[in-house]
Amino acid sequence: MAEHVPAPRFPNRLGPLVGGSQALGLACVIITGVWMGHFRGGFSWDGSLLEFNVHPLCMVLGLVFLYGDAILVFRVFRHDSKRAVKILHAVLHCTALVISIVGFVAVFHFHAKASIPDMYSLHSWCGMVTFLLYLVQWLMGLGFFLFPCIMAQMRSWYLPLHVFFGLALLAMAIASCLLGITEKLLFAIKPTYSKFAPEGILANSLGLLLVCFGVLVGYIVTQKEFKRPPNSEEEALSVHFKMLTGMEGISSP
Amino acid sequence: MAEHVPAPRFPNRLGPLVGGSQALGLACVIITGVWMGHFRGGFSWDGSLLEFNVHPLCMVLGLVFLYGDAILVFRVFRHDSKRAVKILHAVLHCTALVISIVGFVAVFHFHAKASIPDMYSLHSWCGMVTFLLYLVQWLMGLGFFLFPCIMAQMRSWYLPLHVFFGLALLAMAIASCLLGITEKLLFAIKPTYSKFAPEGILANSLGLLLVCFGVLVGYIVTQKEFKRPPNSEEEALSVHFKMLTGMEGISSP
Repeated sequence: MAEHVPAPRFPNRLGPLVGGSQALGLACVIITGVWMGHFRGGFSWDGSLLEFNVHPLCMVLGLVFLYGDAILVFRVFRHDSKRAVKILHAVLHCTALVISIVGFVAVFHFHAKASIPDMYSLHSWCGMVTFLLYLVQWLMGLGFFLFPCIMAQMRSWYLPLHVFFGLALLAMAIASCLLGITEKLLFAIKPTYSKFAPEGILANSLGLLLVCFGVLVGYIVTQKEFKRPPNSEEEALSVHFKMLTGMEGISSP
Repeated sequence: MAEHVPAPRFPNRLGPLVGGSQALGLACVIITGVWMGHFRGGFSWDGSLLEFNVHPLCMVLGLVFLYGDAILVFRVFRHDSKRAVKILHAVLHCTALVISIVGFVAVFHFHAKASIPDMYSLHSWCGMVTFLLYLVQWLMGLGFFLFPCIMAQMRSWYLPLHVFFGLALLAMAIASCLLGITEKLLFAIKPTYSKFAPEGILANSLGLLLVCFGVLVGYIVTQKEFKRPPNSEEEALSVHFKMLTGMEGISSP
């Protein structure tokens, strides 16, 4: 008689929470599209104000939604091979990086054409610091976790830093978006903003939804009950590593 | 011969990191004071723009610096009695709450006198949501952790939520400050902001320092190596609790 193997357990609350995060993230991308597409005249790549409109859409899609999802894959695909999930994490971060570079090019290109000074506002400072630290985190993640030649001890030293700064940079990306929303509204609709113009209410709501997305991703990632269970292959490696070095095994991100 | 009792270990890196957080927090309060006191004309309580100036100072002092310190006490006073540290945590949060209420009254009073509409901007929405959630967190913390009649199981259920939302609300408070900085600069010095006016550079730097403070507090609180070690009294209680209920003991915040 075949031995009974229980199906891997998927925490009850995780499904609805991840579903909620996806609904929030998609809502943020759609609302940004509607704001720029409907209220701000649409998109183009001709150096006009319509090129600027590419910037918010790319940043919300790349540095918030895809970035958040790249973090979540370790919780969602909890019973798949670690290697496959790492590759998915890297692919999502690659896409996020490319989209956010397009977003950066759009705003600098528009500024150059319209002779608007760069990098004077708090939004630009926070956004640039976040983007540069994201690049550093991206390159260090690639170096430490995708190349097999890196020693397990170095990975286990770097892992808590990678996890902490991953979440901190998501929070900074969202804060930069909120600053961008405020800047755009005060430039574009200052006289009607204080009269609760529909565009202002839409953009404010976008801000709160971005915060909700960040809080939900942060909650899912930090709660012990949702941590990725070590699978048999990782357990074996960890025990082998402990025997060889006398150290604690590498925990899952 | 008396038995040798080793001195409790204080992690090497914790001292400099906590020192750094205090330097950053104090710098934020001082820079806010200089910005409002020197560049914006000072403080008063007469419904004028000088009354508004009380608002940023109170929010940075109360909802950022004192709030952050209230979180840190569990790491800093790691070998003192849990009860004493809890009381210090509560006293700091009481002070933070009173100061932030003064900050809220200042801005609403100024708006009423100057007939400026309330609650239309993203800054006001984020700030109000943060403050109301802080009140809920404050009352729930008081109820669950300071009253001895609450059952240990309920405390251990609520603790991870209290810790997570404590950090999430600090991040939201800092994001609200960044939005306030951007709003104030675009109202007060829009023509010279893009010419890198000293006031704009000072306020932008304040924004980055607030982010650094939040990141450092978050780092200290979330790293395993800085977690509060259970003392003998807590260990005994935890073992007793496990024997009674068959549950895991209550972990430290």
